[in-house]
Amino acid sequence: MPKLASVTKRLLVGRPFRSDRLSHTLLPKRIALPVFASDPMSSVAYAPEEILLVLSVAGASAYVFSPWIALLVAVVMAAVVASYRQNVRTYTSGGGDYEVATVNHGPRWGLVVGSALLVDYVLTVAVSIASAASTIGSAVPLVASHKVEFAVGAIVVLTAMNLRGVRESGTAFAIPTYAFVFGILAMIVWSLVRVYVLGGDVRAESADFELVEEHGSLAGLGFAFLILRAFSSGSAALTGVEAISNGVPAFRKPKGRNAATTLLMMGVLAITMFLGLIMLARLTGAQVAEDPAHQLIGAPADYEQKTLVAQLANAVFAGFPPATWYVIFFTGLILVLAANTAFNGFPVLGSILAQDRYLPRQLHTRGDRLVFSNGIVFLAGFAIVLVVAFDAEVTRLIQLYIVGVFMSFVISQSGMIRHWTRLLRTETDPAARRRMRRSQAVNAFGFAMTALVLAVILITKFTQGAWISLAAMAAIYALMSAIRRHYQRVGEELQEDDDDPPIRLPSRNHAIVLVSRMHRPTKRALAYAKALRPDRLEAVTVNVDDQDTRHLVAEWNKQNFSIPLKVVESPYREITKPVLDYVKRIRTDNPRDVVTVFIPEYVVGHWWEQLLHNQSALRLKGRLLFEPGVMVTSVPWQLASSAKVHDRTTPAPGAIRRGIYSKNGDRQEP
Amino acid sequence: MPKLASVTKRLLVGRPFRSDRLSHTLLPKRIALPVFASDPMSSVAYAPEEILLVLSVAGASAYVFSPWIALLVAVVMAAVVASYRQNVRTYTSGGGDYEVATVNHGPRWGLVVGSALLVDYVLTVAVSIASAASTIGSAVPLVASHKVEFAVGAIVVLTAMNLRGVRESGTAFAIPTYAFVFGILAMIVWSLVRVYVLGGDVRAESADFELVEEHGSLAGLGFAFLILRAFSSGSAALTGVEAISNGVPAFRKPKGRNAATTLLMMGVLAITMFLGLIMLARLTGAQVAEDPAHQLIGAPADYEQKTLVAQLANAVFAGFPPATWYVIFFTGLILVLAANTAFNGFPVLGSILAQDRYLPRQLHTRGDRLVFSNGIVFLAGFAIVLVVAFDAEVTRLIQLYIVGVFMSFVISQSGMIRHWTRLLRTETDPAARRRMRRSQAVNAFGFAMTALVLAVILITKFTQGAWISLAAMAAIYALMSAIRRHYQRVGEELQEDDDDPPIRLPSRNHAIVLVSRMHRPTKRALAYAKALRPDRLEAVTVNVDDQDTRHLVAEWNKQNFSIPLKVVESPYREITKPVLDYVKRIRTDNPRDVVTVFIPEYVVGHWWEQLLHNQSALRLKGRLLFEPGVMVTSVPWQLASSAKVHDRTTPAPGAIRRGIYSKNGDRQEP
Repeated sequence: MPKLASVTKRLLVGRPFRSDRLSHTLLPKRIALPVFASDPMSSVAYAPEEILLVLSVAGASAYVFSPWIALLVAVVMAAVVASYRQNVRTYTSGGGDYEVATVNHGPRWGLVVGSALLVDYVLTVAVSIASAASTIGSAVPLVASHKVEFAVGAIVVLTAMNLRGVRESGTAFAIPTYAFVFGILAMIVWSLVRVYVLGGDVRAESADFELVEEHGSLAGLGFAFLILRAFSSGSAALTGVEAISNGVPAFRKPKGRNAATTLLMMGVLAITMFLGLIMLARLTGAQVAEDPAHQLIGAPADYEQKTLVAQLANAVFAGFPPATWYVIFFTGLILVLAANTAFNGFPVLGSILAQDRYLPRQLHTRGDRLVFSNGIVFLAGFAIVLVVAFDAEVTRLIQLYIVGVFMSFVISQSGMIRHWTRLLRTETDPAARRRMRRSQAVNAFGFAMTALVLAVILITKFTQGAWISLAAMAAIYALMSAIRRHYQRVGEELQEDDDDPPIRLPSRNHAIVLVSRMHRPTKRALAYAKALRPDRLEAVTVNVDDQDTRHLVAEWNKQNFSIPLKVVESPYREITKPVLDYVKRIRTDNPRDVVTVFIPEYVVGHWWEQLLHNQSALRLKGRLLFEPGVMVTSVPWQLASSAKVHDRTTPAPGAIRRGIYSKNGDRQEP
Repeated sequence: MPKLASVTKRLLVGRPFRSDRLSHTLLPKRIALPVFASDPMSSVAYAPEEILLVLSVAGASAYVFSPWIALLVAVVMAAVVASYRQNVRTYTSGGGDYEVATVNHGPRWGLVVGSALLVDYVLTVAVSIASAASTIGSAVPLVASHKVEFAVGAIVVLTAMNLRGVRESGTAFAIPTYAFVFGILAMIVWSLVRVYVLGGDVRAESADFELVEEHGSLAGLGFAFLILRAFSSGSAALTGVEAISNGVPAFRKPKGRNAATTLLMMGVLAITMFLGLIMLARLTGAQVAEDPAHQLIGAPADYEQKTLVAQLANAVFAGFPPATWYVIFFTGLILVLAANTAFNGFPVLGSILAQDRYLPRQLHTRGDRLVFSNGIVFLAGFAIVLVVAFDAEVTRLIQLYIVGVFMSFVISQSGMIRHWTRLLRTETDPAARRRMRRSQAVNAFGFAMTALVLAVILITKFTQGAWISLAAMAAIYALMSAIRRHYQRVGEELQEDDDDPPIRLPSRNHAIVLVSRMHRPTKRALAYAKALRPDRLEAVTVNVDDQDTRHLVAEWNKQNFSIPLKVVESPYREITKPVLDYVKRIRTDNPRDVVTVFIPEYVVGHWWEQLLHNQSALRLKGRLLFEPGVMVTSVPWQLASSAKVHDRTTPAPGAIRRGIYSKNGDRQEP
């Protein structure tokens, strides 16, 4: 069987036919960092502020604890980064937490992580855009007074851009991300220079107000609870760290090590900025209150509380507004970029879940505008609902956000612990065992820290919104399980059983060409049907209008075809039923024959033309498919307008984070 | 050519295959009357009241003119009925005014009539339901205080019933229509008996209020204008008369004469009821005011103005509420029935317009739930908009209604005049010429009267809402012309020109079976493709996932098919593009071959299953159709769930008014 051999050879050796000449260029670390780090680093823009906001409930005195809380967050962050460095070195396929959970804890836990991540994408959009609105509102008062409208508008614009197929390019990420990092670090350094070198004083605009506690004084347990709440809000700084684990395939080789290095760079930068900002807040005396109108004594009546970053930039670069604007602008931009990340990550996750049959199969294959569009609209719709429901208040949205993120952290890290335990069972080389034990210890520490944080989140945030995320996850979990079960059932149905009758070759082919009028599409259909040399060939027309039919028969006789024309009566001017009944009758008379129905179809260029053509043909086709032993063949006739539809090749969503990336920063289409 | 001869014979002599065993029973007159007359007779429920309402603006004294105005309306009505008796005798095909206008004035005028009638259907629903709401509101105060909500609710219920496929049956029309006529006539007779035989007094509840004029006194021209307005409002009584001309085919033979007789009966009944109600209003002193709160002096503070019919029934049957309720109930019911008529007449008109290519072709054929559903939703949607926009006020909606009706009256009658002129040109028999001249005179009188009314309507109602109808008609006219032009253009494109290359038989058939996995649907597709004995046959799979593909190739080798399996690479996990490129390459290499692509397709029973299956196949199919020289064959595999979809045979809309009607009053399905 030389043919089959060649098939196998083709598959294993060469590529007989390449559909796509895209350069599959991999990401160098300097580009990978901004691509994957825009999301985790953007959270630096709001996490420090959230700590101060929670503490503000207990008044200015509670601010003393902010550096310690920040330090604790930084420790957890370091632990998580260290842990994920193990993840990316071990699981390089891009499956991320979902893969780690599935492999080590089984598919159910994988699905839990998948549900959590899906919810997270929605919240990434909502939180990032809400934060961007606050940031930009700190410079543009109009935005501050219309925060919800601005946020919804921004989501709509992002959605439109992504629906149009905006290209994710390395450059587009690199410039704003590095500019943001540069801005924040410059701000920190310059403040230190001003205070400690030049001996000046850097005071935030809110430093001189008196921050009073919100609802009477908190004591004992209440205060401890507040500290925990501040800690869990600050943990928002960790959101997005897991992103790199989904992008390992996009790295250059050695993929795992490069990803781990990038993760380390990201961690160092994020922790530095995070701690720097908290330090700067203490240095400048910046204060943010949950309820500025009542808590800030001494503030002017029209005082509009700016974001922490904006206050700090104002203070540090006092007298040089361009620098302030730079920081605010790039902070806003990186937040928008982080939201855009979700639009690109969502389909990637969907594709992975679809591969395991938890989502419709077509999500697995790419280049699918329709599915992608639905996903984008879905994502944007939910994000808008959240933004509106929570008044675009970052503080309130954060409560929903972190629970999902930490849930996947915890599951993933515990999975890694199992992973090492499993490997240790068979490994005998002492050096390797030592390395494994060390890695396991790192993951165990990560697990302990994230589990602790998750517990704190659940205790302090459950009633404040975390329950909404949990309920959404449960619903998504149930839906995805149901989809999987459905595919399972269908798969079993399609599997050959021993008691199924074998599929036999049909004995003869009875071809029917549907004819409505005598024109070129009909003639082409007849010519094609003839070329197939069926055992029987006849043309069938439905007599919807006596006069038309008479005319058709006369034409038919004149044209002198060697194909008989059958006239099917339809007293009630239906088309589907008469044809269906006719086909059924043929099937009944010759059950072993296969019936091929040829339907001439117009191919049109505009959607509204579709409304004017083919509707009867489509309906008939839909019904004929329900008949066993019937094949339906569309013989297309391309109308002139169809030429207007050209191959719209838009980049696949998330292309760049999968490594489909060319040197000039754009995805190239042949 | 014996085959072709037999085809011709089949068409002209017998029916070799009947798809449908429906009994095509025709309507006896006693059933035809209620079926077609519910719409025109229901207008008796609001037309008399509208005359009084308009007159009320000038105070009670203007009521003196009401009998004279009513008499004028009755004369016009008689003229219209007489005219339409000519129409139905002459044009028996059911094309109605549209046909008369098209044949005698050309297609443009036919289209004007068509546009007018489409607008009328929407207004029939809005006016009838609004009037039903007022009528029922006269007995149920809750409805009166929530008229808009009730009307919208009623339209929604009607829509739902029609979407579910409610059957129009003769009985359903006969009982309420005859009950309504009986109720109104009984009310008139009983009032005469009470007053003139028993010598009692019948006073309406509003008789003792003092009706004052609305905005100062009207004099001279203003008053004359008011009288004209009252007349044109009263002309609403004529709406629906044209309905019978669309239903002639449903009558028993001699169709034309039976339809004319039915029209006469309807006319006599409607005029009797109309004049009787106006007379009764004078007799009982019933008063209705446009603005009851300010115009009715002496009315209690919580006085809720009832409809005229309700006031009369209350007065005539005082002391015997069941009779009052009977009249109100059946008046409300016949109004709802009239609205339902529009749901059935709309698709009939659409079918006629579609036959002439003014609307999408699929409207021409019947039994089309999808199209019908769209039509119903469309109709209901616009009717709801109107009801809400005009607060379900019959008085305001009437202004929009009558302009379209009278426009088609006028065009139709002038068409009939031309019709007779044309016939007279060739007719020589003096007796026949006399008959024709008489008929022409009748139509001329009808034309004169309706043209006069139309002029009055345009003068008195244009700014009060008639312009909205005219604008809507213009828009519909433009849309339908555009559709017609599109079909024209496509028709020309499809016509064979001398310089077009002739359609040749493709030299060979290259068959491709798309394979994704090895299961029964794939095997069936392979077996079918083999049975067609193509010149070349190969299986093609897209390598979306290396592991899956390896597995498939291994299975393929094991199964030992004699068909080669081609693996098409797809580095970006797309399906459509690789297959498309592959097919294009085959076409380029062998331009005279035809390529047949076999796509195994799952047939499922639920819409949500469709979301989970076939999406890639459908998209691929859609794109392949754009390739010249490619046929796409669906090889269906019926999943178990598809068995749940049984042949849903619902009655075609408007079946009964086309004569598809069986003895037991229901349409029968075999």
